[in-house]
Amino acid sequence: MKLYGAPNPAPNPRRVRIFLAEKGIDLPETLVNMMQREHKADDFVAKNSLGQIPVLELDDGEIITETISICRYLEGIHPDKPLFGTTPLEVAKIDMAIRRVEFQLMNPVGNFWRHAHPYTAKLLTQFKDFGESNREAVARAMLWLDRELEGHDFIHGNSYTMADIAALTTVDFADWIGLPMPEDAKRLRDWHARVTARPSAAA
Amino acid sequence: MKLYGAPNPAPNPRRVRIFLAEKGIDLPETLVNMMQREHKADDFVAKNSLGQIPVLELDDGEIITETISICRYLEGIHPDKPLFGTTPLEVAKIDMAIRRVEFQLMNPVGNFWRHAHPYTAKLLTQFKDFGESNREAVARAMLWLDRELEGHDFIHGNSYTMADIAALTTVDFADWIGLPMPEDAKRLRDWHARVTARPSAAA
Repeated sequence: MKLYGAPNPAPNPRRVRIFLAEKGIDLPETLVNMMQREHKADDFVAKNSLGQIPVLELDDGEIITETISICRYLEGIHPDKPLFGTTPLEVAKIDMAIRRVEFQLMNPVGNFWRHAHPYTAKLLTQFKDFGESNREAVARAMLWLDRELEGHDFIHGNSYTMADIAALTTVDFADWIGLPMPEDAKRLRDWHARVTARPSAAA
Repeated sequence: MKLYGAPNPAPNPRRVRIFLAEKGIDLPETLVNMMQREHKADDFVAKNSLGQIPVLELDDGEIITETISICRYLEGIHPDKPLFGTTPLEVAKIDMAIRRVEFQLMNPVGNFWRHAHPYTAKLLTQFKDFGESNREAVARAMLWLDRELEGHDFIHGNSYTMADIAALTTVDFADWIGLPMPEDAKRLRDWHARVTARPSAAA
């Protein structure tokens, strides 16, 4: 089994590393040099037609892409310390929590990164006004998440799950591109301190 | 158990209806009047803080939102005729297929709808140039999906899964807002005819 990834600040490979650290799974990462566009080279695109990382290649050649799907597979073969839930209700609610983090928060963070950040200006056609509008959308999403955290230590209730990994990596990436947590998002800030204190966050 | 939904062309409630039809599950839908903004009213937002449909309310008051998570829950309690896979590899690969349809195709369709369609101009602040740019992004995504279908009858290999439901409803909604399948997307068109011929597509 071979895991293709990239160093921080790329948020998706970090998600897999945090997941592996939380589960105690030893799976070394083969680094793909994104600065040299190795993820868009023919041999890599033959593995993932979207030219994205991470990618998990199984010993029989099967390929799994998409961060959450890779982690879901690893959870399937290493069910201990579950991070995706075990009952149908837990599985569905953690899936729901992950999706809400992605659609509400990760999407506007990604839109700002692609359309308003100076780094991507060199690589993409930007729609700057639209990009900038996501600054407010991100703040709004963070304040929504702050309210959702009322009475909970973690994104999905009171246990740490894949939804916390999705949210932590998104919040940290957002901060790195200039979109910090709002000052008054007290619960979100407390949650961030809580999940950052876990050894896995160093991944 | 109570399912809140809305009639076509809203794509998300339709996904749940097709899923129910494929599984043979009888679960009537309580309609939420979106034209009258019932999904943004206090009593509905108390169920789903995002004010979105569909919503599944269990008999004990538990709430599940997010279309895919609702269907994943229903699959968990009705495992027959699996549409999300059964082995860890199948589950991961179908999850991956669903996510790729959503991130590659549904996202630009949604961007066009929100930022370039006359209907939503009344409701939202639009960034028209950005919105229009998604016309090309949608065509590109459909041609990518067309290539992915080479040698397969369905989105995930040779069996009908939740990924087909995600793709069918997205392609039909795209067509409804003026983004038809490209003429030369022959495999995508054949696949569309194949899944549309199933009785479930009438949902």
